[in-house]
Amino acid sequence: MEQLQSELDSVAADLIEGLITRKLKITVAESCTGGWIAQSLTDVVGSSVCFDGAVVSYADEIKRGLLNVSVETLKVHGAVSAEVVTEMSSGVLRLMNADIAVATSGIAGPGGGSEAKPVGLVFFAVAQKGGKTQAWAEHFSGDRRAVRQQAVLCALRRVTSTLKVMENMG
Amino acid sequence: MEQLQSELDSVAADLIEGLITRKLKITVAESCTGGWIAQSLTDVVGSSVCFDGAVVSYADEIKRGLLNVSVETLKVHGAVSAEVVTEMSSGVLRLMNADIAVATSGIAGPGGGSEAKPVGLVFFAVAQKGGKTQAWAEHFSGDRRAVRQQAVLCALRRVTSTLKVMENMG
Repeated sequence: MEQLQSELDSVAADLIEGLITRKLKITVAESCTGGWIAQSLTDVVGSSVCFDGAVVSYADEIKRGLLNVSVETLKVHGAVSAEVVTEMSSGVLRLMNADIAVATSGIAGPGGGSEAKPVGLVFFAVAQKGGKTQAWAEHFSGDRRAVRQQAVLCALRRVTSTLKVMENMG
Repeated sequence: MEQLQSELDSVAADLIEGLITRKLKITVAESCTGGWIAQSLTDVVGSSVCFDGAVVSYADEIKRGLLNVSVETLKVHGAVSAEVVTEMSSGVLRLMNADIAVATSGIAGPGGGSEAKPVGLVFFAVAQKGGKTQAWAEHFSGDRRAVRQQAVLCALRRVTSTLKVMENMG
């Protein structure tokens, strides 16, 4: 946990620096990580330059009402799915008028798992203004806190690498 | 930090238990704590029963657009004020259709302080559905992380004591 925390601090600081350098704003829509990504970003001094706000959308009702995730998508694929995180990320991108957004939805445990969607499964999506949205899944081991912490680290890392790709393509 | 974290875990767990017992939903609007209150609440197993979502409203634009804080209030009192946290708490209470809401806005540091509003100053408000909103200020010492962590603990403690008062009055 401690080692992961210090990694998290360092990745968050690098990401904030990268965003400020590129004059980009980031936002977040968090389900299973519950605010931890936003907390990590705002832990960095100067983050207010590139971070205006974020949404924690734990309940389906908030995913629908605030982030514009469709009832159909939630019904067909379930809240923990690539389709839902994709809509969450594009929804929060618009809501916060940001340049890049990351969304999470997963089974942090200890309950709530199934054979198809076991504890530790987390879906992520990164949306870019005027660009494509990438969604993917990871499976983390450990207890609730460990799953969440690894998910935060994974999300921050992917946004960081997306920024680098954006730059090379731009 | 470590001792505060374990206190925070214990206070968050007690609060979630209290909310579930009373069948109440909580929400949060965070400025200076940046998602940490939401993260602490969702760290507790079973928190989805009493927590649907939260907003991190770092920028004034998000406080206005999403939480309905008035331009006038922001202009006259500044984002770090009792008046703004009061409007943030009632705004997020409505947005999330919750029973109780807590809001924070403060100067986490290291920069951004002034004589009137020094680093470590944090305003809080707790709003209740159909009830009065209480706002207050605290001054915490230490670095950015220490200020934020103490603010999270303070917010959770006040909501917990508010629940007890609600019960005695109900």
